[in-house]
Amino acid sequence: MTQKRKADDAATTTEALAHAARGAALKLATATGDERTAALRRIHAALKQNADRIKAENKKDLDNAAKNNLSKQLIRRLDLSGADKFDAMLQGVLDIAEMEDPVGKTSLATRLDTGLDLYRVSCPIGVVLIIFEARPEVVVNIAALTIKSGNAVILKGGKEAQYSNAILHQIISEALSEITQSSVTKDAVLLVESRTAIDTLLQMDRYIDLVIPRGSNALVRHVQGNTRIPVLGHADGICTTYLDQNLDQESALRILIDAKTTAPSACNATETLLIHSSHLLTPFFHTLLARLTLANISLRLDPPLFTYLTPLEKQNALITEATEEDFSTEFLDTILAVRAVPTLSAAIAHINSHGSHHTDAIITTSSENADAFLRSVDSADVFWNASTRFADGFRFGFGAEIGVSTNKTHARGPVGVEGLLIYKFRLHGNGQCSGDYGVGKKEYKHEKLEVEENKFQL
Amino acid sequence: MTQKRKADDAATTTEALAHAARGAALKLATATGDERTAALRRIHAALKQNADRIKAENKKDLDNAAKNNLSKQLIRRLDLSGADKFDAMLQGVLDIAEMEDPVGKTSLATRLDTGLDLYRVSCPIGVVLIIFEARPEVVVNIAALTIKSGNAVILKGGKEAQYSNAILHQIISEALSEITQSSVTKDAVLLVESRTAIDTLLQMDRYIDLVIPRGSNALVRHVQGNTRIPVLGHADGICTTYLDQNLDQESALRILIDAKTTAPSACNATETLLIHSSHLLTPFFHTLLARLTLANISLRLDPPLFTYLTPLEKQNALITEATEEDFSTEFLDTILAVRAVPTLSAAIAHINSHGSHHTDAIITTSSENADAFLRSVDSADVFWNASTRFADGFRFGFGAEIGVSTNKTHARGPVGVEGLLIYKFRLHGNGQCSGDYGVGKKEYKHEKLEVEENKFQL
Repeated sequence: MTQKRKADDAATTTEALAHAARGAALKLATATGDERTAALRRIHAALKQNADRIKAENKKDLDNAAKNNLSKQLIRRLDLSGADKFDAMLQGVLDIAEMEDPVGKTSLATRLDTGLDLYRVSCPIGVVLIIFEARPEVVVNIAALTIKSGNAVILKGGKEAQYSNAILHQIISEALSEITQSSVTKDAVLLVESRTAIDTLLQMDRYIDLVIPRGSNALVRHVQGNTRIPVLGHADGICTTYLDQNLDQESALRILIDAKTTAPSACNATETLLIHSSHLLTPFFHTLLARLTLANISLRLDPPLFTYLTPLEKQNALITEATEEDFSTEFLDTILAVRAVPTLSAAIAHINSHGSHHTDAIITTSSENADAFLRSVDSADVFWNASTRFADGFRFGFGAEIGVSTNKTHARGPVGVEGLLIYKFRLHGNGQCSGDYGVGKKEYKHEKLEVEENKFQL
Repeated sequence: MTQKRKADDAATTTEALAHAARGAALKLATATGDERTAALRRIHAALKQNADRIKAENKKDLDNAAKNNLSKQLIRRLDLSGADKFDAMLQGVLDIAEMEDPVGKTSLATRLDTGLDLYRVSCPIGVVLIIFEARPEVVVNIAALTIKSGNAVILKGGKEAQYSNAILHQIISEALSEITQSSVTKDAVLLVESRTAIDTLLQMDRYIDLVIPRGSNALVRHVQGNTRIPVLGHADGICTTYLDQNLDQESALRILIDAKTTAPSACNATETLLIHSSHLLTPFFHTLLARLTLANISLRLDPPLFTYLTPLEKQNALITEATEEDFSTEFLDTILAVRAVPTLSAAIAHINSHGSHHTDAIITTSSENADAFLRSVDSADVFWNASTRFADGFRFGFGAEIGVSTNKTHARGPVGVEGLLIYKFRLHGNGQCSGDYGVGKKEYKHEKLEVEENKFQL
């Protein structure tokens, strides 16, 4: 077979898969809440029953990772063998199953005229394509979130987790095949294994309604630049913490160390530290440098700050000069770019022009300054006296998250089930025609009706 | 100057304009409700005061339209001289000014822990680019909707309305320049006149947050295929009306004629008629053909239907054979593609595969069938016993609409002010660190707080 022929065949298979997902989504959109909950319970039971099979396949990924000298951090992410992690994965499915049904909720009811009532009702988006990092439990989390919200999903996980992903998907498929006479079908959760399938899928805007790329900046940019399908996610996490003029010094130090060191490669880690310039001539500035470097944080100081350093500080190997680029860089490491700003407005302007609109924090005792910052910083999450690391779906109380969005439309910040829903308008009439209304004819009433939230829930 | 050089200069000017819009949006995001309302009142007064200037420029567009033999329909759209239309345009600004402030509304409040409260608060999207048809009052409608919602806007109107657009924009600019010390500035409403500017703007995802193309299918497709910026809108309006087995015949006929003839070129006009096949052997089928053709509707019948025609019907020049393509065509004319379907499910399947997910209606006396249809049809608007022509922001009671969306994310159906908003998460702490929480440490409370909707409104 020629290369071209092979590629065509692969595209056909991928198209058939996307088409199957669309079919499953149309069915799933009419599933009752009970059907979706039952499917999740069945998946939970199947995963529990097949723990050994899952761990055996996971072992193959771990062996390959060791063979390929993958980082400890990546191996830790891959590893499902710990009881804590495995049980948490299972419990997650039950937690999501027990959540209140988000589908079919009415959020607006208007009587346009006698006998002509309009309702806005939540419904699933349709087919979601998710590309995610080598973290196998994500297969289970995402399947649970998408089934709960009535969406079909096409999963593409990191290849380092291929055996784990395949077995988890297989068990989910088996569980869904066993529940017959349900509107939740096997094709509601599909897995693609080849990387080339992604580019084919990105062209299938007639079958796929939303793409969620999780992973590197390069992956997200590639997806954004190669599809008409709406993309939900974030490319960078360039988060800033700003130390205002008046603040609790000890709390500022603790927050900064937390924000930089608890997970340096997470998207919500602080990358830039802005300091109000009034601190430069005070002992606090030197305490700050000492405490951050003691916490093993490398500091890249804006050149003007060097005038304020003591000779000893100048010799500290962890303190170096920042380039302009450092202030627009996601280090994914224990590195902090540091700049002084003369005013709160300058801090806000820096963040709005250099940040990635993800999460930014102000540390201040002034509620007025805090409010100005929280209003003016154009980011998904704006925090006052707290670590940027709180930006997370679980920490926010959403149960789980499908991703973090820096989009300005649809869903912003950590995204849970709500970000997987849209609405439709139902209009119930009894023969009304638009031509009956207008100047000298019938008039619209536009009477707000009391919303019965569950009127259309199944 | 070389062509290349000219193009570069134009791009620089366009970039400067987009940059100015971004600056205006950042300011506008902090404007109080009163500032935004005052700006709209000022615009209203300025438009009223300058009615003569506006009408004089509008006359130039009308003269050009006559010279260029534009259609009557287009000329009617261009014409602002009628008192009704001009007054409605002015009244629209006041109506929007008086609407409840949609910015700064809290929709979620969660106590993550003592002293650590999370709020989800509505805020403007930022900079919106709107490309619209030759309909000059849209400049005013859109400026009002975007200022009310705290967004900056870049307008590009149809060239047939260039003089009208320019004068309306100039008066809005003058009005905004006159209000000093406001966060609503002149650059909140910008106009571009050259068509080539659009392609440059579509590349400026760092300044522009949302594109709303209104107009031809070709325009919308071009925008969707050439930008990373989220696109809100619809390419086609292929709406279907389905006549179920049991129905009120007279009401079905009236609805169909309304849906097809009151504005054949509107996106919410019905293009396809599906009939339950039980009707084919009844007198109703012949009444239907008679009444629709009497209303001057051309019928394109699916070939199998020809067996059911009388010899006289076969001679009716308005009745011809449909091609398969007719069932996926937006005719924008008094043409209806007609097909019989054996079941409700077949009707739903036809709509989901052939329609454009805009607006579809079922005519039935069976509430069970209506409910199945409204749930299963994957469209923005799903209607029961009403004309598809009701799909419209004004008719839905939204005051005005910025467009109609067939997107599956953000906003669907007729879009008013709500579609121009997103939210941010505010977290108010007092020194909390993420590392303090976890197994064996502090636990999240995730306590739902009562939502004070106006807590953060200005």
